[in-house]
Amino acid sequence: VGCGVVGGAAATILTRDADVLAERAGMQVQLRHIVDVNFAHARELKLDESLYCEDLQRALDDEQVGVVCELVGGIDLARRITEQALRAGKHVVTANKALLAHCGPELYAVARENGVSIAFEASCGGGIPIVRALLDGLVANRLEALYGIVNGTCNYILTEMTGRGQTYQAALSEAQADGLAEADPTLDVSGGDSAHKLAILAALAFGQKVDFDAIPVVGIDSLELGDLNYGLELGYVVKLLAIAQLQPEGLSLRVRPVFIAQEHPLAWISGPFNAVSVYGHATGHTMYYGRGAGGMPTASAVVADIVSVAQGSWPRMFAQLPVWPDRTPPANQLDIAEVRSRYYIRMKVVDQWGVLSKISKIFAACKISISSLLQPETEDQQDGDEATLIITTHLSREGNVADALARCSRLDVVQAEPVCIGILDEHPERLVHETEPSS
Amino acid sequence: VGCGVVGGAAATILTRDADVLAERAGMQVQLRHIVDVNFAHARELKLDESLYCEDLQRALDDEQVGVVCELVGGIDLARRITEQALRAGKHVVTANKALLAHCGPELYAVARENGVSIAFEASCGGGIPIVRALLDGLVANRLEALYGIVNGTCNYILTEMTGRGQTYQAALSEAQADGLAEADPTLDVSGGDSAHKLAILAALAFGQKVDFDAIPVVGIDSLELGDLNYGLELGYVVKLLAIAQLQPEGLSLRVRPVFIAQEHPLAWISGPFNAVSVYGHATGHTMYYGRGAGGMPTASAVVADIVSVAQGSWPRMFAQLPVWPDRTPPANQLDIAEVRSRYYIRMKVVDQWGVLSKISKIFAACKISISSLLQPETEDQQDGDEATLIITTHLSREGNVADALARCSRLDVVQAEPVCIGILDEHPERLVHETEPSS
Repeated sequence: VGCGVVGGAAATILTRDADVLAERAGMQVQLRHIVDVNFAHARELKLDESLYCEDLQRALDDEQVGVVCELVGGIDLARRITEQALRAGKHVVTANKALLAHCGPELYAVARENGVSIAFEASCGGGIPIVRALLDGLVANRLEALYGIVNGTCNYILTEMTGRGQTYQAALSEAQADGLAEADPTLDVSGGDSAHKLAILAALAFGQKVDFDAIPVVGIDSLELGDLNYGLELGYVVKLLAIAQLQPEGLSLRVRPVFIAQEHPLAWISGPFNAVSVYGHATGHTMYYGRGAGGMPTASAVVADIVSVAQGSWPRMFAQLPVWPDRTPPANQLDIAEVRSRYYIRMKVVDQWGVLSKISKIFAACKISISSLLQPETEDQQDGDEATLIITTHLSREGNVADALARCSRLDVVQAEPVCIGILDEHPERLVHETEPSS
Repeated sequence: VGCGVVGGAAATILTRDADVLAERAGMQVQLRHIVDVNFAHARELKLDESLYCEDLQRALDDEQVGVVCELVGGIDLARRITEQALRAGKHVVTANKALLAHCGPELYAVARENGVSIAFEASCGGGIPIVRALLDGLVANRLEALYGIVNGTCNYILTEMTGRGQTYQAALSEAQADGLAEADPTLDVSGGDSAHKLAILAALAFGQKVDFDAIPVVGIDSLELGDLNYGLELGYVVKLLAIAQLQPEGLSLRVRPVFIAQEHPLAWISGPFNAVSVYGHATGHTMYYGRGAGGMPTASAVVADIVSVAQGSWPRMFAQLPVWPDRTPPANQLDIAEVRSRYYIRMKVVDQWGVLSKISKIFAACKISISSLLQPETEDQQDGDEATLIITTHLSREGNVADALARCSRLDVVQAEPVCIGILDEHPERLVHETEPSS
């Protein structure tokens, strides 16, 4: 249902490439109906016109139909289609992260009532089999943290800014020209799309019900090139990360631009590619990399789900695993103030004696330990001019940092709102491996 | 069966960490017997002594036992244990790549005769769920190529050589001191271990029966630091790669040190980590990264297989998928001479007029097109001294390159056996995506 970029590609795999499934899955999957109201794209792809169907109900009445692929996107219509399909006793395969982030638990419950399942590998990370990794490959692990670069548009823009010194606006325009960003890029650059995927992945990884609306989200649209360059000098690359960390007090979820140490594999992910790092108590660090969007990569995941439903593996996991958010308790989602991280802070200050002492006094009062302090010289600097101050902190409580920055802003000598970016360079694997036997 | 590093870690997950499986898989897996002849390591890990069992048959006679984990390693004993378990109607989970590379098809057939299955996620890439990715997550893809860094010892040694300028011998000694290389490192550094994993992965990826003994293997033990440094200057990092490429004429399988362009994600994999790049016609490039060895990472895969057997997913895939090498036709494994690649060649020549012309004449006669030719200057070079010649070629047939090098060796002006290393910088994804619809 929905023959757009992903739907068209899925239909192409199921028809033109039917031999792939025969050779690799040992089964034939028959595409019975292409449901849409506009078949322009379907005709462009030369999909069999006899399959075109404007009436969803007719497709649902077809007893040969076992699986409905909801690929219309958006929430309201997609939700109606999904519920209708589930109530008709059809399994649903979807690529719709917004739908699942907002209504996942309710829809899973509807699926259970009707003895069917919902599969959604395609909703996160495009062609990367990350949902399966969490549910199956890593099942023997107590997961400790998940860090995802899960929005290709943002990663492309950040790669252009970092690698080619482009401003955010220039990089965005180029991404739009290349078809890598939407005309209205808000959902991507604001971090909202990444938060949808985080809600889905974190719920499965930690077996807790996630409240999407309580995830703090910062996008990339306010990033300044200058900060990226200072970061590079300090050994960091900025990435928009979807972060989930299991801490003793609760689950910390957030989406934001973060400085990552250049040695960490996530720092290497460039252009429109996605990657998800997962830290398990037994595996340590594993990472999954690939194209997070695009018709064929996403369709690869849609078709893998269809096969898994047909083989019975997915319905069995859906029925048996205790991690589905319609069955798990609500996560204790930590307030953003409780996050502990290292931070990069930039301030514009008046270049005069005593400024540093005022600022360090505030940091000390807020229990923030400073790791490094740089005051890059500009060429024609004179006393009384504006100067830039770059501070990195040791592990600090985010609430304390916010407090310190608010206090600094009120100083006469601080010229503008300070910029603050989290730093990820502690390698959680070290903590994880303490539990490993001496072998 | 076999309570060594991996067996001990698997037993630890099944006992100490039993709550993980309860929370994540919704099942309890009971460890019934720890079979070995020496329980020193089991005692060290404080594994329950009441489970120690010196008699495999007693464990097999236990009707409560559904799965036997063969973790003794080696071939002969492991084979007997595996066959005995299969004939007793037990599923077998194994981490034994040598066993499967040599005897996989026969053992799969024995499993089928007895209505059980063999699972082996742990045999390749330690804790990385790469076998599942090939069988399940990427099932909608016609796979085109697979490139694996699948031996952590070799990758550690090469990382030390590249990053710290150590010789092969120094890096090997350090790896041995750090417990990252065996006292007898032959199987690792010779490429044999990587070839085992390649045989297993390629058979599943391409649905063809692989003849292990026909895989050409070159190890890292003859690599010279000088070549790694020349490679870096040209923009390449050397990695020991397990390579499988589906070509129109057949399947090209080989293990060898290869120069990889610094932009390719595989070039970034450092230290003891492993990674496998897979190119599918729909997904394009996906990569799977993690610890390829060690007790807990490998045990993570062993336990995931146990869960998958218990859930019924694995036995169903084992029964239904048409890719198992006991059911697929033998691969048409291309002769190494038929491989087409780019090459790096280094020769020691007498530094005199006319040398280049003699050599280029031979290359032309062998239909090898030269991409670049460098003659790095040494400080006190004089006419008649020895000079070094670095040649990179365009895509060439390996047989032609071998022929050219043999002819060059016979020239008076060529002082020693030329060194030749393949280059991987063509990005197969480009080819793959030609099949994508215009969407």
